Amino acid sequence: MSLALLRKLKIEPPIIIVNFKCYKEATGKNALSLAKIAEKVSKKTGVCILIAPQFTDIKTIANEVEVPILAQHTDPIEPGAFTGHVSLYALKEAGAIGSLINHSEKRIKLSEMDEILSLMKNNEMISVVCANTAKISVACAVLEPEIIAIEPPELIGTGIAVSKAKPEVVQNTVSLIRKVNSKVIILCGAGITKGEDVKAALNLGSQGVLVASGVVKSKNPELSLYDLAESAIKAK
Amino acid sequence: MSLALLRKLKIEPPIIIVNFKCYKEATGKNALSLAKIAEKVSKKTGVCILIAPQFTDIKTIANEVEVPILAQHTDPIEPGAFTGHVSLYALKEAGAIGSLINHSEKRIKLSEMDEILSLMKNNEMISVVCANTAKISVACAVLEPEIIAIEPPELIGTGIAVSKAKPEVVQNTVSLIRKVNSKVIILCGAGITKGEDVKAALNLGSQGVLVASGVVKSKNPELSLYDLAESAIKAK
Amino acid sequence: MSLALLRKLKIEPPIIIVNFKCYKEATGKNALSLAKIAEKVSKKTGVCILIAPQFTDIKTIANEVEVPILAQHTDPIEPGAFTGHVSLYALKEAGAIGSLINHSEKRIKLSEMDEILSLMKNNEMISVVCANTAKISVACAVLEPEIIAIEPPELIGTGIAVSKAKPEVVQNTVSLIRKVNSKVIILCGAGITKGEDVKAALNLGSQGVLVASGVVKSKNPELSLYDLAESAIKAK
Amino acid sequence: MSLALLRKLKIEPPIIIVNFKCYKEATGKNALSLAKIAEKVSKKTGVCILIAPQFTDIKTIANEVEVPILAQHTDPIEPGAFTGHVSLYALKEAGAIGSLINHSEKRIKLSEMDEILSLMKNNEMISVVCANTAKISVACAVLEPEIIAIEPPELIGTGIAVSKAKPEVVQNTVSLIRKVNSKVIILCGAGITKGEDVKAALNLGSQGVLVASGVVKSKNPELSLYDLAESAIKAK
Repeated sequence: MSLALLRKLKIEPPIIIVNFKCYKEATGKNALSLAKIAEKVSKKTGVCILIAPQFTDIKTIANEVEVPILAQHTDPIEPGAFTGHVSLYALKEAGAIGSLINHSEKRIKLSEMDEILSLMKNNEMISVVCANTAKISVACAVLEPEIIAIEPPELIGTGIAVSKAKPEVVQNTVSLIRKVNSKVIILCGAGITKGEDVKAALNLGSQGVLVASGVVKSKNPELSLYDLAESAIKAK
Repeated sequence: MSLALLRKLKIEPPIIIVNFKCYKEATGKNALSLAKIAEKVSKKTGVCILIAPQFTDIKTIANEVEVPILAQHTDPIEPGAFTGHVSLYALKEAGAIGSLINHSEKRIKLSEMDEILSLMKNNEMISVVCANTAKISVACAVLEPEIIAIEPPELIGTGIAVSKAKPEVVQNTVSLIRKVNSKVIILCGAGITKGEDVKAALNLGSQGVLVASGVVKSKNPELSLYDLAESAIKAK
Repeated sequence: MSLALLRKLKIEPPIIIVNFKCYKEATGKNALSLAKIAEKVSKKTGVCILIAPQFTDIKTIANEVEVPILAQHTDPIEPGAFTGHVSLYALKEAGAIGSLINHSEKRIKLSEMDEILSLMKNNEMISVVCANTAKISVACAVLEPEIIAIEPPELIGTGIAVSKAKPEVVQNTVSLIRKVNSKVIILCGAGITKGEDVKAALNLGSQGVLVASGVVKSKNPELSLYDLAESAIKAK
Repeated sequence: MSLALLRKLKIEPPIIIVNFKCYKEATGKNALSLAKIAEKVSKKTGVCILIAPQFTDIKTIANEVEVPILAQHTDPIEPGAFTGHVSLYALKEAGAIGSLINHSEKRIKLSEMDEILSLMKNNEMISVVCANTAKISVACAVLEPEIIAIEPPELIGTGIAVSKAKPEVVQNTVSLIRKVNSKVIILCGAGITKGEDVKAALNLGSQGVLVASGVVKSKNPELSLYDLAESAIKAK
């Protein structure tokens, strides 16, 4: 885990990561619009907002918008003969500064996680490891990613915020992770839609949130993201 | 399988597909250069050349180069909550006209193949199914993709051309496929590097070739691709 | 596909395959009891009944009961350094005469299917390939397994019999398969619980059924299986 | 992790686990012979020897030999509709006391590991988690299995013992694991064939070894295993 890298890329808490998933509302031109909203809200509020668009949209966004971009997944490979795979090298060339890995919709093997994290360190990229329980979060923290996001999968996409429905999970995760890793940035996610969810998350010791449908499928994504960011700044 | 679709997209034999894989020489700016070479050679020779770049490079190439683009893989999903996946919708939005599927470096389940092919038909996209034996090619032909590419995996990347080392595989595949499917375009691949390999391939009844390192890793990709295309036209 | 092998093992239509899955009611001692019921009903009615117990139960059943045993899955491997895998060699040593493959709960890659079928032929074992649509069934028929079982996954475990809810699927599958393969035995499955479901299945041109919960989770498995077998004989 | 469980099953260091893999020399009757050798050597030397035969051989061995049996893998499932899977319930019914998981030849997802470990605790079964690096071993230790086996995959099957070729890996792993887990039993494996390899392993702080071809493919498995066990006792 490299604090220098985080500083260089100006990634500092509170952090909001918007996962575009494969939503139609966040594909192609829509992805570009969302990215511009993220840029605007970030500049206005001063909150560090990262976005995780689909592979096909990374380069265009990187060329047109000033917002740090994560991929949603990466394979544990160097450039080479790997048809249909996603290499970190291609992601970096396209303009991504890192990648989500092990999202509950794209779980990976433990051995792959280790390989990916090594490759990311070598390529100076930010790793955001998703985990679904406190224990798994701690196991991931041992592997020293830059960021960990705890997301109870049963709450993903429900609109029931993890920070309000399962505060003890967040709190417990934070305190257990800190026993083995003092530096990793800890986010929580699942069901985050409102500013008060963010506030609750930060009060429980997390340093930001991972959000998807709460912003992407919102009637007014800009307003929704602004609400989250404002609350993050106030709670800081 | 839709002949109308192939005609609309002007995809007709002889066909050369250049698979960029995850090669460094075919990533980012290099991908764009290669795409321009494909466009140039295609215009000069009149041979239909398709390229299959990485997901991250599709949109930029589609915006800047007139060349039909395939993805190297697609997942069997509609737009939605699928972090780290690749949807046909995103591929089409980015400018791809279809996708390779079941490449030996990215094998898929038979049930997925069927789902993907249905989605591709619904989205009017070209499917190029890779297969490694004559029997599997016939099984795939039953599912009615637009294009089938037979590639004995043991020859991939060797520079030993399938059309010269295993002519009987190509011939056998063509005649077996024709018993169940009269329309699918049949390509062969693995080890193709020279014009004479293409000539041999077309003489055996295939309607084009799938090539990767033979062009991408060539000292002079333009010359190599030109050699392949010229031979394809002559053999026609 | 080897008719000689089927004859040697006395596998002939009408055929009932009872898939034990991982049901508690079909594990350990319960598996042995169910196997004895299958033996009893088969002897009484003359219907060929095969059972597919879990890996751990194959040998004991083979030693104590006269009933042809299938595994529920096999990996495409020869004996060797493959921790946690299932080899055909081990299955045969344990007493299995073949294996289900590609069940909707254990889908495999098309390339694996081909490898497994080759290994099975070399080892003189019976392959029962499961497929979920007519087209996929035909694709599988091209690969020449001994038996194909068409099972629309949406009906599995519902108690709504495929032969009554989707008669056209069964009929269509049979006629399409026959265009490419005249010898493969064709079964249908999903939702089969009663004798009339079997009768309907045979009337549609299938040569038997694949059943699981309809027997395993029945209050009286012997009665249920007897009902199925009786109807199979009458419909023949 | 349950010390009570280990005590109840009389599993205590030094421990030798013999992984039968899918070797022909360890299948069917050969598996039974090897199991009897393990029983004999264990009784003679007093060393705790566990064996990990194939699924199909567990029950017969459990019925005929007094030796603690592990499976080589288990799926994260309760009994139910899971064709072709391996449930802990079936393994326990067959006579296994636990299972290897995450062997380098059968890597699993981190989320699956957590699910399996929970199921094993609920079923009072011994978990032996394999890991390939020091960091991954520590990540696994966080999840509190009963036993961890560190195996650098590049040495597996080579006859070059990890304890002699990479002593620092073993030592480092032991000391890092102890910072987060004081109770887990730590084994090392890969390339172990001789008594001196075991001695070296124990001197480095490991509490036993995981061995496969070194015993299974030995010209004289009994002698080889006796050599390992004797050295384990002396080094204790």
